[in-house]
Amino acid sequence: MTSASALEKVLGKLDEGLPQALDRLLDLLRIPSISTDPAFAGDVRRAAEWLRDDLAAIGFDVSIRETPGHPMVVAHSAPGTGRKILFYGHYDVQPVDPLELWDTPPFEPRIEDTPKGKVIRARGASDDKGQLMTFIEAFRAWKEVHGSLPEGLILLLEGEEESGSPSLRPFLIENASELKADIAAICDTSRYTDGRPAITTQLRGLYGEEITLRAADRDLHSGYFGGIAANPLQILCNAFAGMKDSDGRITLPGFYDGVTELPEALRKDWEALDFSSADFLGAVGLKEPIGEKGRTGLEMTWSRPTFEINGMSGGYTGQGFKTVLPGEATAKVSFRLVGDQDPEKIKTAFRAYMEKAIPADCSISFKHHGGSPASHMNITDPAFAAAKQALSEEWGVEAAFVGAGGSIPIAGDFQELLDMDTMMVGFAMDDDRIHSPNEKYDVESFAKGARSWARIIATFA
Amino acid sequence: MTSASALEKVLGKLDEGLPQALDRLLDLLRIPSISTDPAFAGDVRRAAEWLRDDLAAIGFDVSIRETPGHPMVVAHSAPGTGRKILFYGHYDVQPVDPLELWDTPPFEPRIEDTPKGKVIRARGASDDKGQLMTFIEAFRAWKEVHGSLPEGLILLLEGEEESGSPSLRPFLIENASELKADIAAICDTSRYTDGRPAITTQLRGLYGEEITLRAADRDLHSGYFGGIAANPLQILCNAFAGMKDSDGRITLPGFYDGVTELPEALRKDWEALDFSSADFLGAVGLKEPIGEKGRTGLEMTWSRPTFEINGMSGGYTGQGFKTVLPGEATAKVSFRLVGDQDPEKIKTAFRAYMEKAIPADCSISFKHHGGSPASHMNITDPAFAAAKQALSEEWGVEAAFVGAGGSIPIAGDFQELLDMDTMMVGFAMDDDRIHSPNEKYDVESFAKGARSWARIIATFA
Repeated sequence: MTSASALEKVLGKLDEGLPQALDRLLDLLRIPSISTDPAFAGDVRRAAEWLRDDLAAIGFDVSIRETPGHPMVVAHSAPGTGRKILFYGHYDVQPVDPLELWDTPPFEPRIEDTPKGKVIRARGASDDKGQLMTFIEAFRAWKEVHGSLPEGLILLLEGEEESGSPSLRPFLIENASELKADIAAICDTSRYTDGRPAITTQLRGLYGEEITLRAADRDLHSGYFGGIAANPLQILCNAFAGMKDSDGRITLPGFYDGVTELPEALRKDWEALDFSSADFLGAVGLKEPIGEKGRTGLEMTWSRPTFEINGMSGGYTGQGFKTVLPGEATAKVSFRLVGDQDPEKIKTAFRAYMEKAIPADCSISFKHHGGSPASHMNITDPAFAAAKQALSEEWGVEAAFVGAGGSIPIAGDFQELLDMDTMMVGFAMDDDRIHSPNEKYDVESFAKGARSWARIIATFA
Repeated sequence: MTSASALEKVLGKLDEGLPQALDRLLDLLRIPSISTDPAFAGDVRRAAEWLRDDLAAIGFDVSIRETPGHPMVVAHSAPGTGRKILFYGHYDVQPVDPLELWDTPPFEPRIEDTPKGKVIRARGASDDKGQLMTFIEAFRAWKEVHGSLPEGLILLLEGEEESGSPSLRPFLIENASELKADIAAICDTSRYTDGRPAITTQLRGLYGEEITLRAADRDLHSGYFGGIAANPLQILCNAFAGMKDSDGRITLPGFYDGVTELPEALRKDWEALDFSSADFLGAVGLKEPIGEKGRTGLEMTWSRPTFEINGMSGGYTGQGFKTVLPGEATAKVSFRLVGDQDPEKIKTAFRAYMEKAIPADCSISFKHHGGSPASHMNITDPAFAAAKQALSEEWGVEAAFVGAGGSIPIAGDFQELLDMDTMMVGFAMDDDRIHSPNEKYDVESFAKGARSWARIIATFA
């Protein structure tokens, strides 16, 4: 049997077996595996056991692996001699509060008809149980058609993703040789648009600071001291205003070291995405991109670094008015980083800038929050082109290589600790309400997601 | 009898009668006339009645006058044919919380020995019962020596000053012809230094705005929207930073219209005051004046206009970090005004500046708080020179014409509604702890205060 006809059989199996696949997903969704609440620790373990049993039934060599927190599920197919691929997903879910905003109980999953099609309604339907079951169903159908699993598969299923993954990095370090593959695949992202699948190939990094600026040793009366005494709010405003020039570029010396222009191929891909800044901003009541001059909307959100004030507070902020001159002011700021920008170097430059911006009789203190460089996948690895082709065939439209403005720390961990790039392929929709009441996952996402993975696996096999 | 020897007799009477004068003040201080707390309304009235009875005993034509709030006490001596002078004081006091921080009960006044001399300890001792009794004791001694009160005295004693004087302006308007004098005197300020008495001749005005800047219709994720969406905190920072140039001058068009240089005589007076910015700022943990370049510390605090951020808030300000891009931010700002600066014109210019500073898809709203021009007394009126001379003689050191950075609204009301300037002469000390636990008034302030008023009245008589 040719590989093409074998793939057709796998896809056919997936189509035929959709009702049973949905039943399995609904079983998994019934387990309230809320990782942040210790009261649900037993349920988290139950979900791990459910996955262990399901993977064992398909033929994986699978075990539950303890951590100081919730367990990992690790599974292997026969190693084979070809490339190895590590699949990552997480089986824990977000809390469900406020419960009264759910139209149906969050752990009584159901298939609903909606004007936009059938959806699976439950906590975790999209994030991430529905998504991780797409690749498991693809493996199952593959096994049924071929009699054996694809070789070189490693599965890593985490139970602490919604709790900040405290055990993940130690686990990767401890089990590096076992988990190391040629490439990783994560199914925890969204399609680019309803109709267009996407592979996320770059993520911005992050560096944050909490700043406390102290001037006078108490709040002052602005009648008495106004005009002579340092005002920490004014000093912060001056400093933050000076962080950007009139073109929206960040003024810190050396800030753009390591920031490169988009490769021509990616620029063309992004242009083809027809991103509309007006639509993107219109959804939140805005109209005009305010980022760097001469940059497209996608560059602003995916491939250019930023400086943002996330919070600021000082002086009198209650009802009415007090003519106070505050003794101190605080701010939380963060930078999104791209390319090879070094969080440590930028931290040094930013702190030096702030120290210089304050009068000699004021003092400033910093509290560092996070610091991770950007992640860029090596899309010249043929696996990316092959996966893109596979997705394009399944969805009937050219799949997109996209960026993400935020961070997915595990992709960075895989690069740093296991020296492997990650294909982030997911089928979620922007309206899936992850982390919110009435979370759902489209049945189409689930069915075509599984078919997509089958096609991607075929390019490896 | 010559006028000089008559004055000596009045001063002698005051010295002899100090124990009885202190007893009277202690009586008044025993009445808990807290105007902000309705539970004490009866006590506020009792204080008014006490003053009415005392003034009637000295020979004033006195009455309690009702208002929608607490009553006024108004008293007249024989009108005579000379200049009239209106004396203002207030008989209400601040609340006493936190009571546990008082070393002795706030309404059980006592004379205490301290390392710096005898003090009267009680709520209201300095603000303002002790101060207002200084002129009443001067009138009493005058009456005893001359057999009659000085002619042309009008007394206006308020019971709502600590509650923002809601009834005062309507009362002034309604009784303008009765209250109109050639000049007013307020005893509610401090000496310039321990040894040097002062007449406050100018007060800065005030104009405040509460600003709400709205960008996106919700808080945004800075990973997703950072770099493309408007950040209201950054916009406010940029706008506020632009309010001042590198010399500390305010950049609003027309802002300095009506701001004049100090008259040469006043400049010399102020130079003689030996003001030390380092000492002034050192008391609150600061060192360096940050005001307009090329201005003295006294100019910065008394005669130059300011722009201050009194409060600012937006985004995430709790524990830890959230990479949020706030949907809105708020600020409270105020200007201290001098000379003939017009609050309305500055309001218009400031609002126009802010409107221009925001992107087209953001919106800004303003809430106006207060707006009063600066007050400048006409110190060429010979009454000022005479009072200065009288104070200098009493204290044995040249009295100072000083400014005040804050506002004393009633002085502006007297100018606006009754077309009369005010001599603000007070004997309080910076360590009197007004509005705080353990308020006190130095017995020296009280005794020499009454003697000072006797000398000032003599210059009128």
